[in-house]
Amino acid sequence: MKIYFAGSIRGGRQDAALYHEIVRLLRNHGEVLTEHVADSAFGVLDQDIGYQKIHDRDLEWLRVCDYLVAEVTTPSLGVGYEIARATEWGKRVLCLYRPKNGRSLSAMIAGCSAVTVREYREPAELKDIFEEFLCASKSGETKS
Amino acid sequence: MKIYFAGSIRGGRQDAALYHEIVRLLRNHGEVLTEHVADSAFGVLDQDIGYQKIHDRDLEWLRVCDYLVAEVTTPSLGVGYEIARATEWGKRVLCLYRPKNGRSLSAMIAGCSAVTVREYREPAELKDIFEEFLCASKSGETKS
Repeated sequence: MKIYFAGSIRGGRQDAALYHEIVRLLRNHGEVLTEHVADSAFGVLDQDIGYQKIHDRDLEWLRVCDYLVAEVTTPSLGVGYEIARATEWGKRVLCLYRPKNGRSLSAMIAGCSAVTVREYREPAELKDIFEEFLCASKSGETKS
Repeated sequence: MKIYFAGSIRGGRQDAALYHEIVRLLRNHGEVLTEHVADSAFGVLDQDIGYQKIHDRDLEWLRVCDYLVAEVTTPSLGVGYEIARATEWGKRVLCLYRPKNGRSLSAMIAGCSAVTVREYREPAELKDIFEEFLCASKSGETKS
């Protein structure tokens, strides 16, 4: 099983440590194609290969993945872009959201019927969310 | 000519006055389907109709538009989502970006070959950008 993890990069890295924990938990369910998103040192290095190469490489990973799991608490153009592409391509999409005072989730994400949104407050809640989403959708799979 | 304007809503409204100016300029080129994005009082009212209705209404507007013009300086899940949908559907996409210290544009946007990115510093530069993009792509149009 291939999982594409999406988190904010240029939109803000304040959740990088949390992304690291998410990737660690997702590894119990399959191969995580985008582990670099969780790397706290990430940023400068990746820019060296050029924007178009990053875009095309990431879209290729998105194309071959079974699931997109996105942390959507930090607003991010790239994460929104990846969610829309994934829904167009019929991928299963899980968005993780930590409700914050005075800010609500984008209606493009919260209102998209092809997206499952799970709210949480602590990383400790994620294990159960992943088991429910990744295992339930696997058992309900109709494709080979 | 139908223009879909995209700007940050729940990602942050600090540019609402700028969005208003953009919509005013775009009206010289056609019908702007999403004028509410530029309304500084906008936010609470629209939530009352429900996230899915907002999503489906906005996607319907995006489907019928000729151009997507997006202000991408404030990171936004919804704007990224709309850009990806628009490129999937073969729309012409213009992204307006004000470079800021220490922050670079998402590689998903800057590296997408179907997106035209124009950097600017002052709203006074937008008139020429719109004339170049909206008129040039109209004259190069091959579809009926």
